[in-house]
Amino acid sequence: MLKICFAGGSGHSDRVVRDLAKIPDIQAAAFCRSYPGERTRAIEPLQLKEYASFDEMMDVEKPDILVSDGIFCSHSVYALEALKRGVNVFCEKPVATDLAAYQELAEAVLRPGAPLFWGMLTSRYQHCFYTAKVLVEQGAIGEIRMMNSQKSYPFGRRPEFYKQRETFGGIIPWVSIHAIDWMLWIADRKCLAVSGYQSRTANRGYGEMEVNAVSLMQLEDDIIADVHADFLRPAGAKTHGDDRLRIVGTEGILEVRDEQVYLLDADHDGTEPIVLTPPPRTLFEDFVHTIRGGSGGLITPESSLYSTYVALKCREAADSPTEGMLRI
Amino acid sequence: MLKICFAGGSGHSDRVVRDLAKIPDIQAAAFCRSYPGERTRAIEPLQLKEYASFDEMMDVEKPDILVSDGIFCSHSVYALEALKRGVNVFCEKPVATDLAAYQELAEAVLRPGAPLFWGMLTSRYQHCFYTAKVLVEQGAIGEIRMMNSQKSYPFGRRPEFYKQRETFGGIIPWVSIHAIDWMLWIADRKCLAVSGYQSRTANRGYGEMEVNAVSLMQLEDDIIADVHADFLRPAGAKTHGDDRLRIVGTEGILEVRDEQVYLLDADHDGTEPIVLTPPPRTLFEDFVHTIRGGSGGLITPESSLYSTYVALKCREAADSPTEGMLRI
Repeated sequence: MLKICFAGGSGHSDRVVRDLAKIPDIQAAAFCRSYPGERTRAIEPLQLKEYASFDEMMDVEKPDILVSDGIFCSHSVYALEALKRGVNVFCEKPVATDLAAYQELAEAVLRPGAPLFWGMLTSRYQHCFYTAKVLVEQGAIGEIRMMNSQKSYPFGRRPEFYKQRETFGGIIPWVSIHAIDWMLWIADRKCLAVSGYQSRTANRGYGEMEVNAVSLMQLEDDIIADVHADFLRPAGAKTHGDDRLRIVGTEGILEVRDEQVYLLDADHDGTEPIVLTPPPRTLFEDFVHTIRGGSGGLITPESSLYSTYVALKCREAADSPTEGMLRI
Repeated sequence: MLKICFAGGSGHSDRVVRDLAKIPDIQAAAFCRSYPGERTRAIEPLQLKEYASFDEMMDVEKPDILVSDGIFCSHSVYALEALKRGVNVFCEKPVATDLAAYQELAEAVLRPGAPLFWGMLTSRYQHCFYTAKVLVEQGAIGEIRMMNSQKSYPFGRRPEFYKQRETFGGIIPWVSIHAIDWMLWIADRKCLAVSGYQSRTANRGYGEMEVNAVSLMQLEDDIIADVHADFLRPAGAKTHGDDRLRIVGTEGILEVRDEQVYLLDADHDGTEPIVLTPPPRTLFEDFVHTIRGGSGGLITPESSLYSTYVALKCREAADSPTEGMLRI
């Protein structure tokens, strides 16, 4: 029996909730809030016992898995504590909101014999992005030359902690990171250099929160990858997000939009969606499968760290655009 | 009667040919090639008299309008010669392929009493982009915060001169410039800084020709604008190009794709194309209208220069990406 505890519930903990019923011998035990008044909507359906203290929860419950999903600056803090206690960690992205915390976490994650650590790289399990990955690996578009991505969310009402960089982390580590991750994962390349720009203009009083950003990445093998992200999707839109990916290859172009995959090559004119391939397991199911010794998981500890590292570097570049841009 | 001569016919001279029949008192007289063997397909239907020498053509014909549309590095050369002779110039973009030529041309264009000089900023006359401009001016999406653009062309067979930067100019001044121009025009803002990246990998033996590029522009009022361009559109695609524009505003998002305009705001869910507004005149018609003292032209001498200037700066940034990118 695997026992799960939650530190916070501000992000994608719902992925755990969704998967619980189909995983044998597992039990959600308890949670604590990462700050007073945290709305832990994602895990409300579980009606878990609440602890006032993280340490007490960990001491009493002795979980096998900690889901670290509190205020964004706490992801690495709870993750690190859990790893020290030998507890596997299922950690919301970004796994850290600054490089110092990132380095400390990375050391603990990569220590020989460390418990399993996964970031919630949710997009990898969306059928559209998984299908894109499979098609690229099958050579459907030849060699990748360029990748263009989009993330677009409604502004909506957001918790107060979005107003401070220190607690929120920024639009790039919180939003763009999904696209950064899917591009690194699908291209299976390292990132060599980054540049970018971001803006806080028209942020409706949300302090330091950026409203939009563009990041540009130079990957190995001279691949160019970019992502633009924004919180300006009109409230009337039919869907929450508007994730898009375009991969330009030497033999074809693949696009993900509206959660479908389109291919433009010698045989496909890009108008009919490709039949999607679902991944073998859903996200949390895959995490537990890996804890239990199963192979073939779509995420690794290293890639969980790497997407955050690149996102933090993209944020750093966007924080000093004048150094990285040519004044004209 | 306005008399037209052509220096070359490698680019968008067909816009002149298309419009001739509907313009009164105008006559296409003669052409010369900008280099031996130049294929001047765009003006073949006119069956014009050919001169071996540009100077002889200008001396003998004494045209009112020179269409400068030869090998790309010659755009500014013929334009400058014509301006010196007091001849109006309809000039293919980029109007110059390096900054020295640009500066010399700009001086001549902006000299008081200079003849009219327009760049062939063709996209402004496409109904989709013109409609986008009108909608933005009407406030349909509030204040612009971000603009994301795409240009994608088939590789095809291209003249030998594409193989040298000196004669071709680069993918950014030749292809991305369209998007650079439509973004500057629609936003009606100056560009403050640029960065970007480009690649020659997999260029099928085309020497220095870049295959793809991403440019990032910081416009006035903290507007972020980007464009990715490529020559990798599969030959099987139904259309030549795949121009796209997405404008993210404080009150809505406007998109141009498949030569249609989509709006996502309180009243539009982005699924039905907006009825397009055609511009008052077509491109060359508008040029002649302006020569004849008409007002309301969509292009100015200044904007014809400016799009090229920004494109050349984007190329400069992409030529030295290591200076403008954060190594990670």
